[in-house]
Amino acid sequence: MVSKTTAKFIKSLQLKKYRKQEQCFLVEGAKSVLEVLQSDFEVMLLVATQPFLDVYSLGGKLEVHVATAQQLSSLGTFKSNDAALAVVKMKEQEPFSFEQQEWCIALDDVNDPGNMGSILRIADWYGIYKVLASEQTADFYNPKTIAASKGSFCRVQAYYTSLKEVLTQYPQPVYGAFMEGEDIHKVQFGRGGMLVLGNEANGISLAISSLITKKITIPRYGKAESLNVAMATAVICDNIKRSQK
Amino acid sequence: MVSKTTAKFIKSLQLKKYRKQEQCFLVEGAKSVLEVLQSDFEVMLLVATQPFLDVYSLGGKLEVHVATAQQLSSLGTFKSNDAALAVVKMKEQEPFSFEQQEWCIALDDVNDPGNMGSILRIADWYGIYKVLASEQTADFYNPKTIAASKGSFCRVQAYYTSLKEVLTQYPQPVYGAFMEGEDIHKVQFGRGGMLVLGNEANGISLAISSLITKKITIPRYGKAESLNVAMATAVICDNIKRSQK
Repeated sequence: MVSKTTAKFIKSLQLKKYRKQEQCFLVEGAKSVLEVLQSDFEVMLLVATQPFLDVYSLGGKLEVHVATAQQLSSLGTFKSNDAALAVVKMKEQEPFSFEQQEWCIALDDVNDPGNMGSILRIADWYGIYKVLASEQTADFYNPKTIAASKGSFCRVQAYYTSLKEVLTQYPQPVYGAFMEGEDIHKVQFGRGGMLVLGNEANGISLAISSLITKKITIPRYGKAESLNVAMATAVICDNIKRSQK
Repeated sequence: MVSKTTAKFIKSLQLKKYRKQEQCFLVEGAKSVLEVLQSDFEVMLLVATQPFLDVYSLGGKLEVHVATAQQLSSLGTFKSNDAALAVVKMKEQEPFSFEQQEWCIALDDVNDPGNMGSILRIADWYGIYKVLASEQTADFYNPKTIAASKGSFCRVQAYYTSLKEVLTQYPQPVYGAFMEGEDIHKVQFGRGGMLVLGNEANGISLAISSLITKKITIPRYGKAESLNVAMATAVICDNIKRSQK
């Protein structure tokens, strides 16, 4: 069982204010909870259904509370959760650094946590493990970000920072997705660089635009006005990786 | 103002059962409503805020009801909608046909309407205007599909049908996304064909697998287990189009 105090604490973590104060965040659902348990994140406490605990033997010093699926769902943000929910300690953010032959992604005010999570998943698929995020970008620890990342939050690091400061000093090519850039099918991407994606409604901000060294664009063959920022990230990452073969 | 009867009718269209019965569906938000008004769909009635009507002069025989943003939101599925909502007549589904140099997409039980809508948007971006959908695929007219398509539902046709029947008779190459197919960076896609995408959890079903003439895969460079079906669609469509340049 979960005490009222613990339940209140868990629920509070749905809000950024309390996540920041407690330096903890929520991980929900079987797949993500199993991934976080195997990662180098520190799991503070676990609430799980008996069937989940029967299948996965979770030994060690972990504080485990048994709950029904209904209780579990009422604690978290998922409509239904018949498996588990973990309260996990945030990691301290390390200063951003990079290798010469390394690709990084920078998010210039990507607002939607679902998009943020999807981008983490895409980065993880394409072997990109550092994501810079402007202060206005959706929270890495938002439950929707965590859910959409499908476990990739365990592997991809986010660095919340002033993009302007980092990019001003960044010596490698900085690629930015614009409507009027060079066709990505023709760009010869290097072995390392930064890919900047902009806000869902407004694209890359003026302040950051001036720091882009190479404007690129995804060629359009039909009539849709735009692609969603996560889809655009997937398509561009695929082109980056294939141009290095 | 919207009468109680009209409000009840509009709200009922959130459910597939009533959409089917009434042969009508909902379109919400400024962008989508403006697109559907300019399309060849028949708009039955419009509920809009006065500021929206002040900006866009919507003449003609259209039945227009003025509402506050609060009333508008309570009628539809959007958390907030300060613009407009349209009730639109479904089109009769034409029988599926294709040209020799035409690409089509087939969805084998893609469950999530958000994914369905995203795929319509991607298809529209890449100039693919026919999407076959198995009977279990998310409803084209679901408000979430419509919203995620960002207006592309006006241009892309969906054909709900038995994929098995269509694919059995389809004479062109049928490509399917699997974990163990040929690397899409190496595939020479033809000028026409069918791209099959599978269910979010289970991929392409066994019955349809046997009708795939070419298994393809998106190469992975990192550790994520999978890509979301909409992202996979975007990446594959991009590779199809670039291999034809």
